[in-house]
Amino acid sequence: MKNQLKSIQDTLLMGPGPSCVHPSVYNALATNTIGHLDPYFINLMDQIKGYLKILMNTRNRLTIPVSGTGSAGMETCFVNLLEKNDNVLILINGVFGTRMEDVASRLGANVDVLKFEWGTPVIVDAVEGQLNKKNYDLLAVVHAETSTGVCNPINEIGELIRKKKTLYLVDCVTSLGGMEVKMDKWHIDALYSGTQKCLSCPPGLAPVSFSDRAVEKLNNRKAKVPNWYLDLSMITQYWSGKSRVYHHTAPINMLYGLYQACYNIIQEGMEAVFKRHMNMHNLLISELEQMGIQILVETQSRLPMLNSLIIPDGVDDGEIRSRLLNEYQIEIGGGLGPLTGKIWRIGLMGETAREENIIRLIDALKKLL
Amino acid sequence: MKNQLKSIQDTLLMGPGPSCVHPSVYNALATNTIGHLDPYFINLMDQIKGYLKILMNTRNRLTIPVSGTGSAGMETCFVNLLEKNDNVLILINGVFGTRMEDVASRLGANVDVLKFEWGTPVIVDAVEGQLNKKNYDLLAVVHAETSTGVCNPINEIGELIRKKKTLYLVDCVTSLGGMEVKMDKWHIDALYSGTQKCLSCPPGLAPVSFSDRAVEKLNNRKAKVPNWYLDLSMITQYWSGKSRVYHHTAPINMLYGLYQACYNIIQEGMEAVFKRHMNMHNLLISELEQMGIQILVETQSRLPMLNSLIIPDGVDDGEIRSRLLNEYQIEIGGGLGPLTGKIWRIGLMGETAREENIIRLIDALKKLL
Repeated sequence: MKNQLKSIQDTLLMGPGPSCVHPSVYNALATNTIGHLDPYFINLMDQIKGYLKILMNTRNRLTIPVSGTGSAGMETCFVNLLEKNDNVLILINGVFGTRMEDVASRLGANVDVLKFEWGTPVIVDAVEGQLNKKNYDLLAVVHAETSTGVCNPINEIGELIRKKKTLYLVDCVTSLGGMEVKMDKWHIDALYSGTQKCLSCPPGLAPVSFSDRAVEKLNNRKAKVPNWYLDLSMITQYWSGKSRVYHHTAPINMLYGLYQACYNIIQEGMEAVFKRHMNMHNLLISELEQMGIQILVETQSRLPMLNSLIIPDGVDDGEIRSRLLNEYQIEIGGGLGPLTGKIWRIGLMGETAREENIIRLIDALKKLL
Repeated sequence: MKNQLKSIQDTLLMGPGPSCVHPSVYNALATNTIGHLDPYFINLMDQIKGYLKILMNTRNRLTIPVSGTGSAGMETCFVNLLEKNDNVLILINGVFGTRMEDVASRLGANVDVLKFEWGTPVIVDAVEGQLNKKNYDLLAVVHAETSTGVCNPINEIGELIRKKKTLYLVDCVTSLGGMEVKMDKWHIDALYSGTQKCLSCPPGLAPVSFSDRAVEKLNNRKAKVPNWYLDLSMITQYWSGKSRVYHHTAPINMLYGLYQACYNIIQEGMEAVFKRHMNMHNLLISELEQMGIQILVETQSRLPMLNSLIIPDGVDDGEIRSRLLNEYQIEIGGGLGPLTGKIWRIGLMGETAREENIIRLIDALKKLL
């Protein structure tokens, strides 16, 4: 029997995620498995919760990694916070806002959407106008829209709803660990992320956090959470308290990886990590501009960790990405939805945000274009 | 900063899961991450699907690992197959049957249950009687009830409903990879498992398989699956077909681990693996009986991979399990629900089912009791 794992090459991951993984995280993944109720493991869970609070700038007690990928984080937030016929406002300027609409609709919520052009940020005045027209139980928006490279004004939107009863749900899948996320200061009530972006851990876990207001909504639900696996009212009994109640078997080794990944960021220092992302972003943009390549997003709304560049005229999208992967072992991302074939997405997430990686990519692009 | 991972000891996992992991699987987990649309990864996905079909004895095209732990497999089967007000019959003789009732009820199904004493198997005549009284859209039962160590008569129940319209859903979390699971021959329509039992891979993935009848039900749903993350009609577009459509970022490294774990079983030979489980079960039981320890389950209904022994009179449950873990680095499981404090559960799952492990446990128990 041929073992296909042997043929997997070392690839420089410069797409929209997964990102490059530090060797210490691979080692962590390979640490011997112990039981999900082992005191050593429970200690590790407590450490992970603490690290996540630091990364999110929150004091929320309900701050845990959910046992699924980033999209499970989205599902978790909506399914725990929404009840049938709740009024929801979703701000959409890319794939992940669109996904939110689908998730919330399936749960029986009354969903209104405000749509903004892909590649541009959410316009705060439009949101304010809508909030003045109607009361919402929940407003949801993506911080770093991975499909376009746009940063949305999370702080400003938070200011609009801080005195309302509306819960504020923010997707921080791509932003967490690569730029400031100030959950408490920005009045965010529910936040989810993923491990495979700026945390530089393989995909598989979704850190989530709920404010006291969000926990109150959860505790006062009329109906049980219609999703046993993601029911936070039960999962928190395993993740906190003196006697840990078994819910489902935690993904032990993935949690080792997340522990190490958070450890690495906190060890390097969050400010230093954010600065590195910003410096690498500036370097990449300047190199691309010198090649005459245009960037999709206006300067003031660009994300450091996800850069959308407009594919030059006459260049074959699929061919270049294939050749980058096959001849140079570099992965970059294509466009999604209306941007398919129009942009490339270059990730500078976590361990990927290093000068040598940018030089390697730019060299390859210069040869190929 | 102290790194807590360094203090994690090598523990002999003889509880109800997670089980011991072979070094090759740890190595697989630490293989460098590649993209979820990388051709090498798509090839690996195809291999995994093929391996799972072999392990399940099925030709079902929809056979994939779901991105969550075993309980996510349960959630996946119910949420994809049930619609509001569907009639469901659940056979309960332990924790996991009870969990099925909760999962199905949250989805708005009309749930009937037949309850059997914990520690005894489902009685086929009782099921037949109930099926003659009422038509059900779905019947669900656990193959290997991990909370008690009982094997339920899956084949016989399958015979009862093969000519009915009722879909047959079976939990094979603990059985798959440790004893025969003949999905097609036993007329099973939907099956789920977990990686951390007899597959001897860390927890984190849930292999599932749907028969053509189950897929037909999925394709003819009146309402969308009320769970975006686990919607198999979308997930299968990523796992099969020519152009793989991104749904969520697959848990790449966990899938490496599952690939290697399946590879190991198929390499050793399924018959040989099952025989090893049965031999080790017989060895354990004979050693325990020599010590005068009684087994909860009657001989003909015992599982090879999960052995429930009655805690001898006057023995402190928690103390002995703590000392086993702290002094001997051996984990065994306690009882759940009505069996709390009354039984210990000794797992012989996958890599755990080796003679040296049984000798080590029996030696320790002899010293402690």
